Amino acid sequence: MSKPSAPSPRTRVRRMPERAHYEADAVTAIVDAAMICTVAFQIDGAVHAIPTLHWREGEHLYIHGAKASRMLKALVQGEACVTIALADGLVLARSAMHHSMNYRSVVIYGRFELVANPEDKRRSLRAFIDGLYPDRWATLRPINDKELNTTSLLRIPLAEASAKVRDWGVEDDEEDLSWPAWAGVIPLRTETGTPRTEDDSVLSEAPATRFAGR
Amino acid sequence: MSKPSAPSPRTRVRRMPERAHYEADAVTAIVDAAMICTVAFQIDGAVHAIPTLHWREGEHLYIHGAKASRMLKALVQGEACVTIALADGLVLARSAMHHSMNYRSVVIYGRFELVANPEDKRRSLRAFIDGLYPDRWATLRPINDKELNTTSLLRIPLAEASAKVRDWGVEDDEEDLSWPAWAGVIPLRTETGTPRTEDDSVLSEAPATRFAGR
Repeated sequence: MSKPSAPSPRTRVRRMPERAHYEADAVTAIVDAAMICTVAFQIDGAVHAIPTLHWREGEHLYIHGAKASRMLKALVQGEACVTIALADGLVLARSAMHHSMNYRSVVIYGRFELVANPEDKRRSLRAFIDGLYPDRWATLRPINDKELNTTSLLRIPLAEASAKVRDWGVEDDEEDLSWPAWAGVIPLRTETGTPRTEDDSVLSEAPATRFAGR
Repeated sequence: MSKPSAPSPRTRVRRMPERAHYEADAVTAIVDAAMICTVAFQIDGAVHAIPTLHWREGEHLYIHGAKASRMLKALVQGEACVTIALADGLVLARSAMHHSMNYRSVVIYGRFELVANPEDKRRSLRAFIDGLYPDRWATLRPINDKELNTTSLLRIPLAEASAKVRDWGVEDDEEDLSWPAWAGVIPLRTETGTPRTEDDSVLSEAPATRFAGR
């Protein structure tokens, strides 16, 4: 079985193609592991990029924001490019040239569409909250129509996406292997610290998050 | 003393302006704390965005890559937008609406310029390596002319940049304060794990990195 090829010319990874992955599973795993994406778009021909929270349902990446947001308005009118990058490790070689980083990244091209139906919005916001904090939605003060109305949800298909992953050791030149500089990988990970409960919180125990221990 | 205003219309923070910072110190602190930025740019009118490593020297953010890189060639020909985002905490409120995130982010607008002089490149790559791993450059197999020649360095001024920071607690509606859902902040941090030394590394002890304990 041959490796899947890029879904479109613009998703084909040009630099370091040995790090490319085009399978849907590779893309969705990285989308799910990350919480923040960067959305690049154009307004009047000028390029803008803004980091924002995201979540995934099925074959779409979702973002949300205030209905009045300039970005959300621009996004439904043109093409966007969404990127995600997770730093997994520092790669230290014997030469400066071969220093590198272990990472997982995704680039998605396409157009966002508005999720307009209030029940779809409610269901999707619930998936967002419960995806970060299992079963939390049902414990919250219920969302009201005004909140739902002033929040815009957008989604972009994951159909035109590529992933890029480096997850291996040092690649020094053969003749440098005996050079006396430490060579190896220093892993990086994002961890949760001790929760800080608000003074007026009725409950004192923080819920589980899907980031614990990642 | 009044707060500095945005250095240009396109850097003015429109959503949540209370989170905006325009002082150079606020921008450089976030640039220095992060290792990865996302560079958004255009090729033939289409928007692209690619995550890449960065470092700072003085009033510029630097990136590097292969001389043949399509991105680096496009960057010197048009405007770019560079974003950085660091996730600092999960903010859990009593209502879905007031869930949020503590973060530090930067958006930089401008045009990259090529750093062409070999001695400038050498000095700047040294600053990059030593910035991540203090005093490491001098211990490495020296960079050669071919490596220097096939590596392109670009830099963009930090003159047109804004920072956005949320670093406080929960902001629930007054009438929700007694709702029995946990309210508070769960800190997030990036930490280094146990270094994995290459089997053929002459030295067995990993150097310090500026990420330890951040």
